[in-house]
Amino acid sequence: MNDDTRQGPESGRDEGGYVLRPIGRVRSPLVDRASAPRQGDEGSPEAWIVFEPDVADGLRDLAVGADVLVLTWLDRADRDVLSVHPRGDARTPVRGVFDTRSPDRPNPIGLHRVRIITIDGLRMGVRDLEALDGTPIVDVKPVLGGIGER
Amino acid sequence: MNDDTRQGPESGRDEGGYVLRPIGRVRSPLVDRASAPRQGDEGSPEAWIVFEPDVADGLRDLAVGADVLVLTWLDRADRDVLSVHPRGDARTPVRGVFDTRSPDRPNPIGLHRVRIITIDGLRMGVRDLEALDGTPIVDVKPVLGGIGER
Repeated sequence: MNDDTRQGPESGRDEGGYVLRPIGRVRSPLVDRASAPRQGDEGSPEAWIVFEPDVADGLRDLAVGADVLVLTWLDRADRDVLSVHPRGDARTPVRGVFDTRSPDRPNPIGLHRVRIITIDGLRMGVRDLEALDGTPIVDVKPVLGGIGER
Repeated sequence: MNDDTRQGPESGRDEGGYVLRPIGRVRSPLVDRASAPRQGDEGSPEAWIVFEPDVADGLRDLAVGADVLVLTWLDRADRDVLSVHPRGDARTPVRGVFDTRSPDRPNPIGLHRVRIITIDGLRMGVRDLEALDGTPIVDVKPVLGGIGER
């Protein structure tokens, strides 16, 4: 298990890392971190996701009323942070970032469970998305139900 | 809401995308997609995550017995795919990838809920991780409880 050799082709490999390409952007009244709620179900305004035309075929089975997981790239995060005061509260003890949902972390991928409330071509209206205006979207996934529903 | 201008610094911006840097790798008996279960709770063997030394400070609050979300980069995925037969079954109708958990998708980020069963320095033993041996780890997040527990 300590063998570090590995083979096989790799997808999206760039020098020293892997390149994410945005599939869309958030359009939201939230414009800075100070005004954004800590989690999507803590008072987020309704927001839009505007997708790139080249991913339209991947979107066709998303439906109004469904809950989905939206993955974002938190492009205003500090990637050098490894420990934080949870929820930005200086009174709470510092914790390692991997036990928090802080946006500041080595790979600032945001994970948001949202409800689809409107679909209009490449624009999707959603509830409970706390990401800032302009945030890149990198993936959308269905919420998994029990094993029998997959 | 149609305004495409945006300002502000961006983290990890590379030409045309954002660069993910692996924080560790999966060590698992699973070596190819044909033998891997479709989801982690469908018969995955126990696996190890071996973290990079430079993220050690971020790991210190992870504990044996906890369930966490592990995000991977599915480096053997096909990024040009926008529609698939769900679960690789040719009898099921083709669906847009964003309504499936297919590894083949524009940004192949894997999302895995696992249980921590061992911690040994930079190595963490986990249950229910269906990722292949060598898969890069890009993030670890706590599972969120109800609002009162955050």
